[in-house]
Amino acid sequence: MKPFYAPLFDALLKHAAKAPAGFHVPGHHNGQAMKLVLPINEQSEHPSEYFYKIMQLDVTELSTTDDLHHPEASIQEAQQLAAKTFGTDETFFLVGGSTSGNLALLLTLCEPDDIVIVQRNVHKSVLNGLRLSGAKAVFLSPRIDKNSGLATVPALEQVEAALALYPEAKAVFLSNPNYYGMGISLSRYVEAAHRYNVPILVDEAHGAHYGFHEAFPNSSLSEGVDAVVQSAHKTLPTLTMGALLHVQGNRIPLDSLRETLAMVQSSSPSFPILASIDISRAMMDTLGPMLFDQSLRSVSSFRNWLRNQETTLCEVYYDADTASMLQVDPLRVVLYDVSGQRSGFELQKLLEQYGCFAEMADSRYVVLVFGVQTSTQDVKKLQYAIKTISDSSHKTEKKPKDFQPLSMTNGFEWTSIQPVSFKKTAFKNKAIQRIPLQLTEGQLSAEMVTPYPPGIAILYPGEKITAAMIDYIQYLSEAGAKFQGAGDPSLATISIFAEKADLPT
Amino acid sequence: MKPFYAPLFDALLKHAAKAPAGFHVPGHHNGQAMKLVLPINEQSEHPSEYFYKIMQLDVTELSTTDDLHHPEASIQEAQQLAAKTFGTDETFFLVGGSTSGNLALLLTLCEPDDIVIVQRNVHKSVLNGLRLSGAKAVFLSPRIDKNSGLATVPALEQVEAALALYPEAKAVFLSNPNYYGMGISLSRYVEAAHRYNVPILVDEAHGAHYGFHEAFPNSSLSEGVDAVVQSAHKTLPTLTMGALLHVQGNRIPLDSLRETLAMVQSSSPSFPILASIDISRAMMDTLGPMLFDQSLRSVSSFRNWLRNQETTLCEVYYDADTASMLQVDPLRVVLYDVSGQRSGFELQKLLEQYGCFAEMADSRYVVLVFGVQTSTQDVKKLQYAIKTISDSSHKTEKKPKDFQPLSMTNGFEWTSIQPVSFKKTAFKNKAIQRIPLQLTEGQLSAEMVTPYPPGIAILYPGEKITAAMIDYIQYLSEAGAKFQGAGDPSLATISIFAEKADLPT
Repeated sequence: MKPFYAPLFDALLKHAAKAPAGFHVPGHHNGQAMKLVLPINEQSEHPSEYFYKIMQLDVTELSTTDDLHHPEASIQEAQQLAAKTFGTDETFFLVGGSTSGNLALLLTLCEPDDIVIVQRNVHKSVLNGLRLSGAKAVFLSPRIDKNSGLATVPALEQVEAALALYPEAKAVFLSNPNYYGMGISLSRYVEAAHRYNVPILVDEAHGAHYGFHEAFPNSSLSEGVDAVVQSAHKTLPTLTMGALLHVQGNRIPLDSLRETLAMVQSSSPSFPILASIDISRAMMDTLGPMLFDQSLRSVSSFRNWLRNQETTLCEVYYDADTASMLQVDPLRVVLYDVSGQRSGFELQKLLEQYGCFAEMADSRYVVLVFGVQTSTQDVKKLQYAIKTISDSSHKTEKKPKDFQPLSMTNGFEWTSIQPVSFKKTAFKNKAIQRIPLQLTEGQLSAEMVTPYPPGIAILYPGEKITAAMIDYIQYLSEAGAKFQGAGDPSLATISIFAEKADLPT
Repeated sequence: MKPFYAPLFDALLKHAAKAPAGFHVPGHHNGQAMKLVLPINEQSEHPSEYFYKIMQLDVTELSTTDDLHHPEASIQEAQQLAAKTFGTDETFFLVGGSTSGNLALLLTLCEPDDIVIVQRNVHKSVLNGLRLSGAKAVFLSPRIDKNSGLATVPALEQVEAALALYPEAKAVFLSNPNYYGMGISLSRYVEAAHRYNVPILVDEAHGAHYGFHEAFPNSSLSEGVDAVVQSAHKTLPTLTMGALLHVQGNRIPLDSLRETLAMVQSSSPSFPILASIDISRAMMDTLGPMLFDQSLRSVSSFRNWLRNQETTLCEVYYDADTASMLQVDPLRVVLYDVSGQRSGFELQKLLEQYGCFAEMADSRYVVLVFGVQTSTQDVKKLQYAIKTISDSSHKTEKKPKDFQPLSMTNGFEWTSIQPVSFKKTAFKNKAIQRIPLQLTEGQLSAEMVTPYPPGIAILYPGEKITAAMIDYIQYLSEAGAKFQGAGDPSLATISIFAEKADLPT
């Protein structure tokens, strides 16, 4: 095994070991403030149990600790080691999640009215990056797998057609793999984009572990994309909000990228989050593929068990055409109720009753993520839950229903070869009005409607609302989906852009 | 004492206590991944020592944990309790630092070409908010204290004049107190802005503790401002990046604010950071002013000691005119070398040699922040450091120099009653060129030049570079100031907007 070496974590340890007198922020003063005597009730625990140790590492920009937005010591070394491990030219540690990486890339590459070729079912941070930069989107519909109803990246031919129409595009933005662990090889997309010298950017939030074990798909970096954003916290042993932005080649201006990263992220980044990224990289270097052995064993044993059970909960399967090109993440298990009695949301709730917390549900599926070190015990708990839910299903007489997944195959078309603007000024002559969802058909949405997870916007500001969308939003809302950022979280009403003359006075 | 009650922290504890089987992100799987055996060298420590406990709380949006961007359970309750404690209508917890609050406020209130009346020496995140929203700034010069050379908010008359000229302004944006703990009462500024029905926004990053002890100045909320951003992590026992946005009255559209907060922050916010904000509020409610007793005792004993010493390091003092209206934070100590031998940067380095880490230095001053629970032992360490530095000063024959502080009184005028645009399109017919700093006089800067800390931009994109600025940047750079986000971190060169015809071909 390679020795464990994490320069940023080490620098923080060295600083703490000096027992320095700190006359600086943060105010917790190396966790001392957490040691105060508090009248905690008997069932509870003292916060210092949880926070004291991490607060030893929660420092600020000091001569001993470096500065994320101007790295020249341990953060610089940690980022360079990560670039080597992930096989890229430059790696930037992010403390604002993949969100900050997606925003920064678009703000770096785009000026107002520039065109970006975008897969429509991207994470909302990509749409927000377009909004903030003033760029226009040429939207491409994802390819939908016939069996599962789930969406992957758009067909290569669509990307090629869009590039031929808009060779001046500033970027092609794809999201791969999707939330369900379905991805495809991007090498031919890279060839297509580079034929026009257009950079190809990938939101690989769910694939930070790709390429690190022979059981995993290749990383998109290894397939030649120009920039990749990864949520380190999703699949590596990193604290939440810790993410990575990798850049290779010469199509992304690094000076400008550094500037925009400093713009969209806190000027006082969290050292514990940064150190946890450094530690994750060091663990990958030290343990190699072994880091994922336990999880892979757990997930295989679960799959073997499931295949040999007569349960109403089954794993998703794909159409032969899709399956032939799919690269599937073995650490994601996507289940649905074959008896058609329960939606994904219902399954999620039932699993929770047996102490099993899933990553996400949509109307049809529930998604389980096996993390680094998911144990045999956890798998047993899951098996028990599935067996019990399945047994009770056999007994009920609930009418089966065809639950549609979130990828929205149900009648609305997303390709928009005409560039779409997100700029508020595009609607300057409109007034914003909040009206009942049922009355919005044909209107332009004035807000983003985003079920979370997965964080993919069903409606963006300026998008024309169809009857299918109204049905779908109502269905999701009734089924218990959560929506982020909506003015009316119940979605009984939606803000629309109305002609000023149409408004009641 | 009121019982200690922190609903979000409690919810996380309750979830952890169930020992749930988690099939969700983050990948560290409740810290299990941190328990892996690693070949750590003898001097070092295993990461799990520091990360394991906090990772028990580092979960994702689950039915048991709530969602920051759509709060309806423990986060909602925690925010409502905070609103009560801080005395406001609405409180939003932030995980992206004060940066995210400043960006969100400007994106909420401004559309392109809208006007905002802005104190010039604001934190760079305010300028970035103007850039991202496309708004124009009417810049007001800060008032400069004659003795110290330090800058506070602009004079009331200046704000009134700007409001009279631009009554359509979308906001007045002030920064109070400054990094040195100098603030003034804002009640008359509030009256002036509200006379025009213009909301007044305050970056109170350094004043989250204000109003919670009779020794502290009033909070700006209590003086009637419409929205306040506070870095909870700076002066409360909160993890770094934990911040607060408070809103009162009806001048800030809350729906739109929720949307922009979800836009500029991670869609997977850190629960440990959120819980630490909740805990800080609970500690304030439980302990009341007692929370700050230890720090106030430490800082008084230090001040008493300093007054009775014959050291070359003295505390800053203000002109009588300024002093009469100043409200000073007792927990900040601003020192300088009266013998004129050492710059603030040099003092900071010397203090570090004796194990004392200061918050910030500029060319003249070093700023010490006393956190919650700064101990007598730390004060003794500081006294020893100051005495030793002072003694060595008496012995040297270094030529005294008049070190100027960062507030830049040295010959450049910042008031710009003509609205300034930050939009890239304002420079569409220009090319960007990187040239030596010394050749930039009279050119328009194409980048933001920001020494950090304090994070106040000396130059913004589009600003005309004067000879005084060039001298000042060179001086800061040589003196060891750090710059965030600069294309050339040494600042030997600066990007400028050049006429396309002027460029070498």
